Amino acid sequence: MSPGEMIYEGKAKKIFRLPTEPDNVLMEFKDSLTAFNALKKGSFESKGPVNRDIASLIFAHLRKRGIDSHWVRDEGDRAMVARKVEIIPLEVVIRSILAGSTAKKLGLEEGGTLPRPLVEFYYKNDALQDPFVSDDQIEVFNIASAADIKELKHKALQVNDALKELFGAAGIRLVDFKIEFGKDKNGRILLADEITPDCCRLWDAKTNEKMDKDRFRRDLGEVKEKYLEVLNRLRAVCANQTGVKG
Amino acid sequence: MSPGEMIYEGKAKKIFRLPTEPDNVLMEFKDSLTAFNALKKGSFESKGPVNRDIASLIFAHLRKRGIDSHWVRDEGDRAMVARKVEIIPLEVVIRSILAGSTAKKLGLEEGGTLPRPLVEFYYKNDALQDPFVSDDQIEVFNIASAADIKELKHKALQVNDALKELFGAAGIRLVDFKIEFGKDKNGRILLADEITPDCCRLWDAKTNEKMDKDRFRRDLGEVKEKYLEVLNRLRAVCANQTGVKG
Repeated sequence: MSPGEMIYEGKAKKIFRLPTEPDNVLMEFKDSLTAFNALKKGSFESKGPVNRDIASLIFAHLRKRGIDSHWVRDEGDRAMVARKVEIIPLEVVIRSILAGSTAKKLGLEEGGTLPRPLVEFYYKNDALQDPFVSDDQIEVFNIASAADIKELKHKALQVNDALKELFGAAGIRLVDFKIEFGKDKNGRILLADEITPDCCRLWDAKTNEKMDKDRFRRDLGEVKEKYLEVLNRLRAVCANQTGVKG
Repeated sequence: MSPGEMIYEGKAKKIFRLPTEPDNVLMEFKDSLTAFNALKKGSFESKGPVNRDIASLIFAHLRKRGIDSHWVRDEGDRAMVARKVEIIPLEVVIRSILAGSTAKKLGLEEGGTLPRPLVEFYYKNDALQDPFVSDDQIEVFNIASAADIKELKHKALQVNDALKELFGAAGIRLVDFKIEFGKDKNGRILLADEITPDCCRLWDAKTNEKMDKDRFRRDLGEVKEKYLEVLNRLRAVCANQTGVKG
């Protein structure tokens, strides 16, 4: 399998055409780390492979729970073949514990458990710094239809339930996470992009130690070590689950 | 009627107790003008009386259309007696034409007509600079209930329809406006605060000239003259309507 031309390069991934599979693309995970809309930049060796492994392990777990994504199969050590989709330009954030921009905006302390998961939408636009938008704004400015918004919320909460179970079994509190969705050529909405410590807040269930990109954002050190620990803990849970079933 | 102690002083109004009317308060309109969360300050003589007259004329018009507010009656030249309410801490913004913070946030030009009126909520909190909030955030953070949000939206759109008709007859385009609601002692939601050029964007229907607080915000001059013109045009419309009916 040889990839064709690169059709997109983002902050953490490159996307290539696949000449022999016109409905799929190749998604390669880079070693770079960025924060604050790419004002802060870094990287660590093997970050791409670690994140690819976390992402495909999670996509596989979600598929077992009936939640479809663009993931098709892994390829090499830092890439995956994924269904070609048109990304819906919304970052969907699901919060179970208060942290980050919403805590700051409302003048509330981080760490409080919310009475129910909160789903937020941010309009994906780097030049505008991904502004927070309401359902009504999404509709009126034609970013997505009312039916799509409803489906995104429903799927986001399904993903949240499945991830909470998975991370919980790994001794990790899922504080919040950001996902993206896309439409395939038939207009079907699929979970897309990635789910990795780059776009989740993950706290150790016992110590509350951060195990995600906040270590990089806030200069806490041990970024690589914590990403690897997330992968190893998830692997242990999945191996265990397979064992139970076998 | 002699007012009791002052119980609140805001940027544009003072509220006094009314010892002889325990369910009501006296709301006095100040001459001051502020913008950008009070970073910019100004005033003009007679601004209080002009805004009081505009507000009560609008509340009277809305009442005829079946929309209740806290307005009870005028008092002196710069005050009104109003039903005592507990303000729901949300600034409700209704936009028919795109302008202001939402245009800026989405990188869109001002002046475009929206396909339908857009209702937005901002959490009333000066220290946090009145952050924009979604319906879901309002519920989860217990700012208002789902039922209240639904009622606020419904009432906001009713007010919008009635105001568009009134301003339209006065040759003025209602671009957007901010209103607040409160609950009376029986828990009934009433339109409260004020509706004046301080919290509306009003453009002359022929020239698109601004006739509202943007003249002060953007140093366009003739602030007093335009506020007075709004009052005079509304008075002419109302006199005319009375004539037609009489």
